Amino acid sequence: MLFMKEHVTKQARRAKEASRLLACVPVEVRNGALLAMAWDLEARQDEILEVNAKEVETAREKTKRPNMIDRLILTPKRIADMAEGIRQVVKLDDPIGKLDFEVVRPNGLKIRRVRVPFGVVGMVYEARPNVTADAIALCIKSGNACILRGGSEAIRTNKKIVDIMKEAGEANGIPPRSIEFISILDRDSVVVMCRLRKLINVIIPRGGAGLIARVVEHSTVPVIETGTGVCHTFVDKTANQDMAIKVCINAKTSRPSVCNAMETLLIHKDIAEEFLPKIVAAMPMVELRGDEACQQIIPDMKAAVDDDWTTEYNDLILSIKIVDDVDAAIEHINQYGTAHSDAIITEDKANATKFEQMIDSSTVYVNASTRFTDGFEFGLGAEIGISTQKMHARGPMGLEALTTTKYLVDGDGQIR
Amino acid sequence: MLFMKEHVTKQARRAKEASRLLACVPVEVRNGALLAMAWDLEARQDEILEVNAKEVETAREKTKRPNMIDRLILTPKRIADMAEGIRQVVKLDDPIGKLDFEVVRPNGLKIRRVRVPFGVVGMVYEARPNVTADAIALCIKSGNACILRGGSEAIRTNKKIVDIMKEAGEANGIPPRSIEFISILDRDSVVVMCRLRKLINVIIPRGGAGLIARVVEHSTVPVIETGTGVCHTFVDKTANQDMAIKVCINAKTSRPSVCNAMETLLIHKDIAEEFLPKIVAAMPMVELRGDEACQQIIPDMKAAVDDDWTTEYNDLILSIKIVDDVDAAIEHINQYGTAHSDAIITEDKANATKFEQMIDSSTVYVNASTRFTDGFEFGLGAEIGISTQKMHARGPMGLEALTTTKYLVDGDGQIR
Repeated sequence: MLFMKEHVTKQARRAKEASRLLACVPVEVRNGALLAMAWDLEARQDEILEVNAKEVETAREKTKRPNMIDRLILTPKRIADMAEGIRQVVKLDDPIGKLDFEVVRPNGLKIRRVRVPFGVVGMVYEARPNVTADAIALCIKSGNACILRGGSEAIRTNKKIVDIMKEAGEANGIPPRSIEFISILDRDSVVVMCRLRKLINVIIPRGGAGLIARVVEHSTVPVIETGTGVCHTFVDKTANQDMAIKVCINAKTSRPSVCNAMETLLIHKDIAEEFLPKIVAAMPMVELRGDEACQQIIPDMKAAVDDDWTTEYNDLILSIKIVDDVDAAIEHINQYGTAHSDAIITEDKANATKFEQMIDSSTVYVNASTRFTDGFEFGLGAEIGISTQKMHARGPMGLEALTTTKYLVDGDGQIR
Repeated sequence: MLFMKEHVTKQARRAKEASRLLACVPVEVRNGALLAMAWDLEARQDEILEVNAKEVETAREKTKRPNMIDRLILTPKRIADMAEGIRQVVKLDDPIGKLDFEVVRPNGLKIRRVRVPFGVVGMVYEARPNVTADAIALCIKSGNACILRGGSEAIRTNKKIVDIMKEAGEANGIPPRSIEFISILDRDSVVVMCRLRKLINVIIPRGGAGLIARVVEHSTVPVIETGTGVCHTFVDKTANQDMAIKVCINAKTSRPSVCNAMETLLIHKDIAEEFLPKIVAAMPMVELRGDEACQQIIPDMKAAVDDDWTTEYNDLILSIKIVDDVDAAIEHINQYGTAHSDAIITEDKANATKFEQMIDSSTVYVNASTRFTDGFEFGLGAEIGISTQKMHARGPMGLEALTTTKYLVDGDGQIR
């Protein structure tokens, strides 16, 4: 623990030092380095695939969770996607130096507020190696040094990706030590990172609820929470039911392992007898868990228990509740949800507006699938995560979420 | 402790419930209620003054710190200033509902991002009772419920101010329980507040370094750190020395107890022999503590020790260091400062630009006093505090810093 702590602290200190230089690197150099990183990831894909294959093998021996293996595994296609993701980041506007406020005060002081990098971004994440490439690309583009701590299952794959990107970056003008990767296998390294207030400016955890809770509990470094999504769809009395079925199938089944997938379906009581059987028929592959009212309509439906309303299944399971009206739906969602993404399917404009106003979530949908909560889908170009908290950034976070501001005040001797 | 914990939790829960209603209260009603609050504070000032006089008396018996007494004491003028502050807040634009991003995606999804209140703002502060009125005004204006925990010395004065403002607010359309004040005298109530993640959306501590460190250490609620200011002025070789003297006197002595006052003066070595004696002559009322180089010029100057470089004196004390050049000044400030406000006095444009770019502080001045870091001075109209961290808000925080955003997505059945 002591060695690990010293080592991680030293890495963070190096990143901090590098961050001061990186903040002054022009965007052309940052972009050029990113293109070199993308190129080298593809050129050296055999090295990555070799390391990854061994890790996948080890993981298969240890776990029976096919989801985890799926997230861990890399293919030439996935590496090409990573590289393409980096090239997309290159195309985005530089967020640094943007003037977002300017005023000349009556006393002649000229006040400007400009966008600047955070400094050092700490990323703590789980199995998916593509997060490594995404995080580095977004941090470097936004002028931030980063210190990465990935999941143990993918540690060698991640290390290889980092090494390739570091080498390409440093050969192309990125200050050495701008990218640090924690390769010590020690669960407590997360906690150590979370306490390095003077060295790390923000911690972004990406992963399951357990990881995020752990970071929030221990961190004195400011945290941007991401990802846990207990997302709802409320099918109102006036819903176009064909649309509702289509949207529900998409929200639940198109990719059940992600945070913007639907976990709970709420149905207006006046249409429940008609609509619930349609859901049952439309989702034969999904395990449905209903409240008592559901069971009265579909007697052999499995019963939902209290925990179901707060569970992010990340799986082909759906809890269903029949509610009295839009107000009851809003109350349920605000009570049990995670303020991620929630949808209403309705033809009633007043209910749609009420839902948009009263639901306290990062993204509120009217007549669309919750699956759209995503940086690319929103046109932000890329995302470092989806913030489920209200501080700094909310919802899908693009490059700007990795920056802060600084006031520059020019005078000619003004005193107060 | 158990009773206190339950009580504070109950207060926070009420505030949370009220916040859902308050978020929908139109700006005309919020403004009307604020005007009523301002009116009643003045109309009922005798009640406030009476309570305050007793507290001041008690405080005088307990402490010899005139600063503390000065901050605690209320006068008709100070109450009128509070009321005027509220009226200023009424005049500010409503931050709520502002559209700050809008796009129609190729698939027809219409995405809007609008400003919404945080929900419940927790304020933890020390002696000054005017913070109570400011905080309530800014929270109500921005549609936020608030839960306030002031310093024990002012607890009765604060309670009286809160009661008057609550009554005026509730009589004018503000949902009951939107303003909660913790009147239990228990140091640990701060810690309890800091752990109420589901009920309080953000904690803003205002006060000394000890209070802020305590909140950061214990909080799982996101914190916006404010205020601790070890502010520097660097007098460069090319400085207009008359201007430099005038700015330094202002930065150090106009109000030494506040966070934007100068604590450390850095002087370029080439002008030190000429400039340092001028400072000594200009600040007879200030205790100067110099490094060795200073003592070689002014032999009887008190020696600065290591702690001096990191101390926020909040008093008529100034530490002075002689540095080689602008780079050494930047290094010193980034190492020992609190990233609050730092100034360079120079006629050298290149050095000014370098200083602006490299100093990692919320506000960087060229040829002006650090004392201007303030919401009113920046034209924000009012401030809830000065953020010394990089998340969410940086520097003086006005109404917008008390809001977050929400994405509203309208579709006609889009699936992904």
